[in-house]
Amino acid sequence: MAESPDRRSSDIDEAIMQATYRALHEHGYAGLTMQRIADEYGKSTAAIHYHYDTKEDLLAAFLDYLLERFREAVHEVETTDPEQRLQLLLDQLIVDPGDHHGLLIAMLEMRSQAPYNETFRERFRQNDEYIRYLLETVIDHGNEAGVFAGVDPEHTARTLLTVVDGARTRAVVLEERTALETARRAVEEYVDAVVLA
Amino acid sequence: MAESPDRRSSDIDEAIMQATYRALHEHGYAGLTMQRIADEYGKSTAAIHYHYDTKEDLLAAFLDYLLERFREAVHEVETTDPEQRLQLLLDQLIVDPGDHHGLLIAMLEMRSQAPYNETFRERFRQNDEYIRYLLETVIDHGNEAGVFAGVDPEHTARTLLTVVDGARTRAVVLEERTALETARRAVEEYVDAVVLA
Repeated sequence: MAESPDRRSSDIDEAIMQATYRALHEHGYAGLTMQRIADEYGKSTAAIHYHYDTKEDLLAAFLDYLLERFREAVHEVETTDPEQRLQLLLDQLIVDPGDHHGLLIAMLEMRSQAPYNETFRERFRQNDEYIRYLLETVIDHGNEAGVFAGVDPEHTARTLLTVVDGARTRAVVLEERTALETARRAVEEYVDAVVLA
Repeated sequence: MAESPDRRSSDIDEAIMQATYRALHEHGYAGLTMQRIADEYGKSTAAIHYHYDTKEDLLAAFLDYLLERFREAVHEVETTDPEQRLQLLLDQLIVDPGDHHGLLIAMLEMRSQAPYNETFRERFRQNDEYIRYLLETVIDHGNEAGVFAGVDPEHTARTLLTVVDGARTRAVVLEERTALETARRAVEEYVDAVVLA
């Protein structure tokens, strides 16, 4: 049976997103052009423009794509135990970039453009809001279950994300190899000493 | 008595740094040109080029200038009591930018260029190393005095700076108004629960 048009369209999107990922990884944000994405995609720039009007549209879709991948990873976290769930969320947030250091670099460039680029700014805000919502929900749950020490869910979520964002910035700016390890250990200490009952 | 040539030269440097500060604040890093700095300085671009060959040289000097101002503020912290000294250092690091939000934005743009710009990268590393040294010294001292809980000075310093850098990033990217308050409260909680004996 032939695939549905929807399915085919989403395969094309996936291929363009993968090409964007590789082009960003290789050339960075400042060096990213539709031509380089097309080269990675193995087709003409027209084939990309057919789906995305501008580079900015494509990059907005790419940020959505990264968030979607994160959501999928998070949905695999099936546990409802608050402490375990918080730890697993933190594991997802503080991932060793491994071979993906170039992506961290490109993301920081895009982040630094947020004050000048409303599309980026809105995406970064939505991402942050979604992740905060996940964290606040599990913290609420832990407080109610008496496993957490009745901490302020909003402040706690913002604190944990501040550590995550600090580690990502330091990994790029200072090439601090241990930035993510430091962050993982720091949130562990904070959770043990402040969050847990 | 006439001022010494050294004194006059340092007055000129100061005036150019102030002009760079205002130009960065107003136009951001991407919009910064020698012409705009010269406009703020009230002289020709040639007058600036006489002191700084390139924009990059000038920005490297500007980063040094900011660090020097930070050092001066830190040197006013005369107390040797480890807990008080740590708190005062953290106060200096987590300053409400107030009217200087534009400078935070420009700094993040420069930071995001560190992977591509060795001059910037070296400055940011030196700054970070210096501040880490100050923090590690006071933590060592607190451990020895028995006021701190024998914590790892390097990890603790890196953790505190991760929170600072995360707050600065979030203040710019998300326009999170409470980013610095969150950071101040978070380091307070961390110090109380983890660092203090």
